[in-house]
Amino acid sequence: MTPPSHLAYVPFISVENMMRLVHSIGVETVLKELADAIEHDFTRWQLFDKTPRFGCHSETGVIELMPTSDGEFYGFKYVNGHPTNTKQGLQTVTAFGLLANVSSGYPVLLSEMTVLTALRTAATSAMAARHLAPKGAKVMALIGNGAQSEFQAMAFKAVVGIEEVRLYDIDAAATAKCARNLAGSGLKVTACRSSQEAMEGAQIVTTCTADKQFATILTDNMIGDGIHINAIGGDCPGKTELHKDILLRSQIFVEYPPQTRIEGEIQQMSADHPVTELWQVITGEAEGRTSASQITLFDGVGFAIEDFSALKYVHERALKTGHFVQLDMIADPDDPRDLFGMLTRAGEPALA
Amino acid sequence: MTPPSHLAYVPFISVENMMRLVHSIGVETVLKELADAIEHDFTRWQLFDKTPRFGCHSETGVIELMPTSDGEFYGFKYVNGHPTNTKQGLQTVTAFGLLANVSSGYPVLLSEMTVLTALRTAATSAMAARHLAPKGAKVMALIGNGAQSEFQAMAFKAVVGIEEVRLYDIDAAATAKCARNLAGSGLKVTACRSSQEAMEGAQIVTTCTADKQFATILTDNMIGDGIHINAIGGDCPGKTELHKDILLRSQIFVEYPPQTRIEGEIQQMSADHPVTELWQVITGEAEGRTSASQITLFDGVGFAIEDFSALKYVHERALKTGHFVQLDMIADPDDPRDLFGMLTRAGEPALA
Repeated sequence: MTPPSHLAYVPFISVENMMRLVHSIGVETVLKELADAIEHDFTRWQLFDKTPRFGCHSETGVIELMPTSDGEFYGFKYVNGHPTNTKQGLQTVTAFGLLANVSSGYPVLLSEMTVLTALRTAATSAMAARHLAPKGAKVMALIGNGAQSEFQAMAFKAVVGIEEVRLYDIDAAATAKCARNLAGSGLKVTACRSSQEAMEGAQIVTTCTADKQFATILTDNMIGDGIHINAIGGDCPGKTELHKDILLRSQIFVEYPPQTRIEGEIQQMSADHPVTELWQVITGEAEGRTSASQITLFDGVGFAIEDFSALKYVHERALKTGHFVQLDMIADPDDPRDLFGMLTRAGEPALA
Repeated sequence: MTPPSHLAYVPFISVENMMRLVHSIGVETVLKELADAIEHDFTRWQLFDKTPRFGCHSETGVIELMPTSDGEFYGFKYVNGHPTNTKQGLQTVTAFGLLANVSSGYPVLLSEMTVLTALRTAATSAMAARHLAPKGAKVMALIGNGAQSEFQAMAFKAVVGIEEVRLYDIDAAATAKCARNLAGSGLKVTACRSSQEAMEGAQIVTTCTADKQFATILTDNMIGDGIHINAIGGDCPGKTELHKDILLRSQIFVEYPPQTRIEGEIQQMSADHPVTELWQVITGEAEGRTSASQITLFDGVGFAIEDFSALKYVHERALKTGHFVQLDMIADPDDPRDLFGMLTRAGEPALA
């Protein structure tokens, strides 16, 4: 069989190559550069095709496709969310994504996105906090110490300047794992025995718990004036983390309202509850935090544009550093109309 | 870096392995087995999640995601359609697809689908004709001799028993290519100088032209009583092949009405123009051809369930024959909550 031409190949970043790529740049630098890349694409918000994600729901979880395009590139992510997976030693969330050229429809990158989603989620949170958190915030409470927690801690260190994280999880083993992973990171890490204890002295609180249910991770009395809440664990219908009273006291910032009203904390509120679109804060079209005493809430659910930014970022970096392999994914007959001839010739003994 | 565990791997069928797989089984056997697999899934039609595909349209073409699920497996296809690509030596249509386990959300197969889509499109057409074409049909006119044409010819030979194909294309080079590829296939191949000439003696006519425009490949006077029309080139808004008068005389069969009314020949008709769903003919809930003189039209646009059937078919066959490689696509930390630890340890010099 004759080898495929260069047109047949799509660069692929495996999990192993993604990890090599991240280490070749440095985790904190990646988080900083991703935050900048996502922020840049938020300034181009109106260029993008936007749609709520397409979900396939089952009793155990959801499989989603999240496409978007800026007219030059098209990207989509496949992502699942299956909270009971961990009981079988599987990930709750796994993902991969694709970037394609809009003018030809040809893919230009296939990439693992389990690691990349963890990075972009943390980078998005930190980017939002850069605009919304009180000035000089140094201490963050981190409630929910699962797979996303260390990424959040490192992003807030790199992007916002957080110096201490105060950890709490209903499972002490998760807290111990998070603390162990953050040892040597340069962050002061304090393991706490309750959410209340974790909140002591914190200017920012991040909730990233994983149960698929209406939960009350934070109650109203825990949230003092001036706090920035980064609520990212509520990300599907029926899954929230905050008591409704907190939402009533907060200025709420969201990515894409039609999606957040279905999936975010604000699914608890009426369909016309006022929210501000984060991209408008970044472009200056809307106000972010307006006083030191205001409670700001980033109701983050994850949006396709963030994955697009992340795919474009790793595409550029991987091509430069060689952290990819070529996949023979696109049929490339010499004559584009001769797909059958290519197939037939592939079966001829002389070429097989 | 420690090697990924088996949970990290997704079997991948490259273009080369797809071609090897097809030849190891035989093209005609694959087409027959695919027709049977698709027919079987059409009998389970009501089990499937169904939605019109999600398109990203640009000036040069469209990129689409076509998901579906039967509750046990989830499948989707990425496919582009860019008619001007051939001018740059690229394929008009390229595709790849994924099959996943619904209960865990984990992918079980990634596959090229440019070759596979050509096979499943032809198998679907032939499967429809098995139910709709006049009994004993032996001659098929094949109008449009591009990338799909030989697949149609071989599927109609294998599934319907066609013995002669009569070729016509506005580009004589395409006809010559098609005739060359079908030499030795066992089919009598006749190159014609007009659509009219191609129709002489044919009981079936297949139109598979590729221009993205309202075209009139067949006019009313060309279609005699009893003909089965297999119209598959009209597959997006603004792209049709048949004169409206033919549609008015035909019993029209479609895959999924909400999609076909947007993309198929019937986009020329009112939104309530009567059509029959092919799956109901197969299950016996609706009548197919009711007389020898009736004109039947399969207005085929390609539906996600056909891709799902095709992915399931090649998944089973590839795992048996070994025509795949393993891709490290799923991050698999020892502790599912310890994604960051997996990333950190990957960067440690001792393991790097």
